[in-house]
Amino acid sequence: MSDHCITPVAAHEPPYYAVVFTSLRTERDGGYGATAQRMGELVKEIPGFLGEDSARTPGGLSITVAYFRDLADIEQWRQNTEHREAKAYGREHWHERYVIHIARVEHSHGFERASC
Amino acid sequence: MSDHCITPVAAHEPPYYAVVFTSLRTERDGGYGATAQRMGELVKEIPGFLGEDSARTPGGLSITVAYFRDLADIEQWRQNTEHREAKAYGREHWHERYVIHIARVEHSHGFERASC
Repeated sequence: MSDHCITPVAAHEPPYYAVVFTSLRTERDGGYGATAQRMGELVKEIPGFLGEDSARTPGGLSITVAYFRDLADIEQWRQNTEHREAKAYGREHWHERYVIHIARVEHSHGFERASC
Repeated sequence: MSDHCITPVAAHEPPYYAVVFTSLRTERDGGYGATAQRMGELVKEIPGFLGEDSARTPGGLSITVAYFRDLADIEQWRQNTEHREAKAYGREHWHERYVIHIARVEHSHGFERASC
Protein backbone atom coordinates (compact mmCIF):
# COMPACT_ATOMS: atom_id res chain seq x y z
CA MET A 1 0.00 0.00 0.00
CA SER A 2 1.57 3.23 -1.13
CA ASP A 3 -0.76 5.06 1.29
CA HIS A 4 1.14 3.54 4.17
CA CYS A 5 4.24 5.40 3.14
CA ILE A 6 2.73 8.86 3.37
CA THR A 7 4.74 10.17 6.29
CA PRO A 8 4.08 13.34 8.29
CA VAL A 9 6.92 15.73 9.05
CA ALA A 10 8.86 14.11 11.89
CA ALA A 11 9.13 15.32 15.46
CA HIS A 12 12.30 17.42 15.49
CA GLU A 13 14.34 18.42 18.51
CA PRO A 14 12.62 21.47 20.09
CA PRO A 15 12.59 24.35 19.87
CA TYR A 16 11.44 24.87 16.32
CA TYR A 17 8.50 26.72 14.80
CA ALA A 18 5.20 25.68 13.26
CA VAL A 19 3.21 27.92 10.94
CA VAL A 20 -0.38 26.70 10.93
CA PHE A 21 -2.37 27.95 7.94
CA THR A 22 -6.06 27.04 8.06
CA SER A 23 -8.24 28.18 5.20
CA LEU A 24 -11.52 27.87 3.45
CA ARG A 25 -11.09 28.26 -0.26
CA THR A 26 -13.39 29.90 -2.74
CA GLU A 27 -14.82 27.84 -5.57
CA ARG A 28 -12.47 29.57 -8.00
CA ASP A 29 -9.50 27.26 -8.23
CA GLY A 30 -7.92 28.69 -11.38
CA GLY A 31 -4.16 28.50 -11.10
CA TYR A 32 -4.19 27.41 -7.47
CA GLY A 33 -2.56 24.02 -7.99
CA ALA A 34 0.35 25.37 -10.03
CA THR A 35 0.99 28.19 -7.56
CA ALA A 36 0.77 25.86 -4.55
CA GLN A 37 3.25 23.51 -6.20
CA ARG A 38 5.62 26.38 -7.00
CA MET A 39 5.42 27.66 -3.40
CA GLY A 40 6.08 24.13 -2.16
CA GLU A 41 9.29 24.09 -4.17
CA LEU A 42 10.31 27.64 -3.33
CA VAL A 43 9.98 27.25 0.44
CA LYS A 44 12.53 24.43 0.32
CA GLU A 45 15.15 27.07 -0.47
CA ILE A 46 14.74 28.55 3.01
CA PRO A 47 17.69 27.10 4.98
CA GLY A 48 15.74 26.39 8.17
CA PHE A 49 12.70 24.86 6.46
CA LEU A 50 11.99 21.45 8.05
CA GLY A 51 9.03 20.31 5.95
CA GLU A 52 5.30 20.77 5.68
CA ASP A 53 2.10 18.71 5.91
CA SER A 54 -1.19 19.46 4.19
CA ALA A 55 -4.68 18.04 4.36
CA ARG A 56 -7.90 19.17 2.74
CA THR A 57 -11.39 17.95 3.39
CA PRO A 58 -13.32 18.07 0.11
CA GLY A 59 -15.74 20.99 0.41
CA GLY A 60 -14.26 21.90 3.78
CA LEU A 61 -11.15 23.19 5.50
CA SER A 62 -7.58 23.05 4.27
CA ILE A 63 -4.81 22.90 6.84
CA THR A 64 -1.14 23.30 6.01
CA VAL A 65 1.48 23.21 8.75
CA ALA A 66 5.00 24.28 7.76
CA TYR A 67 7.90 23.76 10.15
CA PHE A 68 10.98 25.97 10.43
CA ARG A 69 13.98 25.95 12.70
CA ASP A 70 13.71 29.60 13.61
CA LEU A 71 11.56 32.74 13.45
CA ALA A 72 14.17 34.28 11.14
CA ASP A 73 13.46 31.53 8.59
CA ILE A 74 9.75 32.33 8.71
CA GLU A 75 10.52 36.02 8.26
CA GLN A 76 12.71 35.24 5.26
CA TRP A 77 9.89 33.22 3.71
CA ARG A 78 7.35 35.94 4.53
CA GLN A 79 9.48 38.52 2.71
CA ASN A 80 10.07 36.41 -0.39
CA THR A 81 8.73 38.47 -3.30
CA GLU A 82 7.17 35.61 -5.23
CA HIS A 83 5.52 34.32 -2.04
CA ARG A 84 4.13 37.78 -1.25
CA GLU A 85 2.65 38.04 -4.72
CA ALA A 86 1.09 34.59 -4.42
CA LYS A 87 -0.43 35.52 -1.05
CA ALA A 88 -1.89 38.76 -2.40
CA TYR A 89 -3.35 36.89 -5.38
CA GLY A 90 -4.70 34.21 -3.03
CA ARG A 91 -6.53 36.75 -0.89
CA GLU A 92 -8.06 38.19 -4.05
CA HIS A 93 -9.06 34.92 -5.69
CA TRP A 94 -8.70 31.72 -3.68
CA HIS A 95 -9.44 32.25 -0.01
CA GLU A 96 -12.78 33.00 1.61
CA ARG A 97 -11.03 33.19 4.94
CA TYR A 98 -7.91 31.97 6.64
CA VAL A 99 -6.17 32.10 9.99
CA ILE A 100 -2.40 31.85 10.52
CA HIS A 101 -0.89 30.84 13.87
CA ILE A 102 2.89 31.02 14.31
CA ALA A 103 3.96 28.88 17.22
CA ARG A 104 7.12 27.73 18.96
CA VAL A 105 7.16 23.95 19.32
CA GLU A 106 8.09 22.93 22.86
CA HIS A 107 7.30 19.20 22.80
CA SER A 108 6.83 16.67 20.06
CA HIS A 109 6.73 12.94 19.58
CA GLY A 110 5.71 10.40 17.01
CA PHE A 111 4.17 6.96 16.76
CA GLU A 112 4.78 4.52 13.94
CA ARG A 113 3.25 1.08 13.53
CA ALA A 114 5.89 0.09 11.00
CA SER A 115 8.39 2.05 8.97
CA CYS A 116 7.90 2.45 5.22
CA MET B 1 -23.36 28.57 0.21
CA SER B 2 -23.11 26.79 3.54
CA ASP B 3 -19.46 26.03 2.74
CA HIS B 4 -18.70 29.71 3.09
CA CYS B 5 -19.66 29.59 6.72
CA ILE B 6 -17.15 26.92 7.73
CA THR B 7 -14.94 29.05 9.91
CA PRO B 8 -11.51 28.11 11.27
CA VAL B 9 -10.69 28.68 14.93
CA ALA B 10 -10.04 32.41 15.24
CA ALA B 11 -6.74 34.09 15.99
CA HIS B 12 -6.75 34.55 19.76
CA GLU B 13 -4.63 36.93 21.78
CA PRO B 14 -1.21 35.25 22.28
CA PRO B 15 0.13 33.43 24.08
CA TYR B 16 -1.94 30.30 23.72
CA TYR B 17 -1.10 26.75 22.70
CA ALA B 18 -1.65 24.67 19.58
CA VAL B 19 -1.57 20.88 19.60
CA VAL B 20 -0.91 19.72 16.04
CA PHE B 21 -1.87 16.08 15.47
CA THR B 22 -0.92 14.78 12.03
CA SER B 23 -1.76 11.18 11.23
CA LEU B 24 -2.10 8.57 8.58
CA ARG B 25 -4.94 6.24 9.41
CA THR B 26 -5.19 2.54 8.78
CA GLU B 27 -7.94 1.22 6.55
CA ARG B 28 -9.76 -0.08 9.62
CA ASP B 29 -12.20 2.65 10.47
CA GLY B 30 -14.48 0.66 12.79
CA GLY B 31 -15.70 2.89 15.60
CA TYR B 32 -13.44 5.77 14.66
CA GLY B 33 -16.19 8.25 13.81
CA ALA B 34 -18.12 7.71 17.04
CA THR B 35 -14.98 7.97 19.16
CA ALA B 36 -13.77 11.08 17.33
CA GLN B 37 -17.16 12.69 17.88
CA ARG B 38 -17.13 11.76 21.58
CA MET B 39 -13.61 13.16 22.02
CA GLY B 40 -14.71 16.35 20.22
CA GLU B 41 -17.46 16.77 22.81
CA LEU B 42 -15.33 15.76 25.79
CA VAL B 43 -12.50 18.18 25.04
CA LYS B 44 -14.97 21.08 25.27
CA GLU B 45 -15.14 20.40 29.00
CA ILE B 46 -11.53 21.52 29.41
CA PRO B 47 -11.82 25.12 30.66
CA GLY B 48 -9.01 26.53 28.51
CA PHE B 49 -10.05 24.76 25.30
CA LEU B 50 -10.32 27.36 22.51
CA GLY B 51 -11.49 25.17 19.63
CA GLU B 52 -10.10 22.80 17.03
CA ASP B 53 -9.84 22.47 13.26
CA SER B 54 -9.60 19.25 11.29
CA ALA B 55 -8.95 18.38 7.67
CA ARG B 56 -8.47 15.04 5.98
CA THR B 57 -7.33 14.35 2.45
CA PRO B 58 -9.12 11.22 1.22
CA GLY B 59 -6.51 8.45 1.18
CA GLY B 60 -3.96 10.80 2.70
CA LEU B 61 -3.07 12.75 5.81
CA SER B 62 -5.38 13.90 8.57
CA ILE B 63 -4.45 17.05 10.47
CA THR B 64 -6.22 18.20 13.61
CA VAL B 65 -5.09 21.34 15.43
CA ALA B 66 -6.57 21.92 18.89
CA TYR B 67 -6.02 25.23 20.66
CA PHE B 68 -5.76 25.72 24.43
CA ARG B 69 -5.10 28.72 26.59
CA ASP B 70 -2.41 27.04 28.64
CA LEU B 71 -0.12 24.00 28.95
CA ALA B 72 -2.05 23.02 32.08
CA ASP B 73 -5.20 22.64 29.96
CA ILE B 74 -3.37 20.32 27.58
CA GLU B 75 -2.07 18.30 30.51
CA GLN B 76 -5.59 18.02 31.90
CA TRP B 77 -6.82 16.75 28.53
CA ARG B 78 -3.86 14.36 28.22
CA GLN B 79 -4.69 12.82 31.61
CA ASN B 80 -8.41 12.41 30.92
CA THR B 81 -9.11 8.69 31.35
CA GLU B 82 -11.53 8.32 28.47
CA HIS B 83 -9.15 10.22 26.19
CA ARG B 84 -6.23 8.00 27.23
CA GLU B 85 -8.25 4.89 26.46
CA ALA B 86 -9.26 6.27 23.06
CA LYS B 87 -5.62 7.06 22.26
CA ALA B 88 -4.46 3.58 23.23
CA TYR B 89 -7.21 2.03 21.11
CA GLY B 90 -6.30 4.38 18.26
CA ARG B 91 -2.65 3.30 18.29
CA GLU B 92 -3.80 -0.32 18.20
CA HIS B 93 -6.41 0.02 15.48
CA TRP B 94 -6.66 3.32 13.61
CA HIS B 95 -3.27 4.93 13.16
CA GLU B 96 -0.43 3.78 10.96
CA ARG B 97 1.63 6.67 12.24
CA TYR B 98 1.21 10.07 13.77
CA VAL B 99 3.22 13.01 15.00
CA ILE B 100 2.17 15.44 17.73
CA HIS B 101 3.69 18.90 18.08
CA ILE B 102 2.77 21.04 21.10
CA ALA B 103 3.52 24.66 20.38
CA ARG B 104 3.14 28.06 22.02
CA VAL B 105 1.45 30.50 19.65
CA GLU B 106 3.33 33.78 19.52
CA HIS B 107 1.64 35.51 16.58
CA SER B 108 -1.64 35.02 14.78
CA HIS B 109 -3.91 36.82 12.38
CA GLY B 110 -6.84 36.15 10.14
CA PHE B 111 -8.29 37.20 6.80
CA GLU B 112 -11.93 37.15 5.91
CA ARG B 113 -13.50 38.10 2.59
CA ALA B 114 -16.93 38.45 4.16
CA SER B 115 -18.39 37.34 7.45
CA CYS B 116 -20.88 34.49 7.57
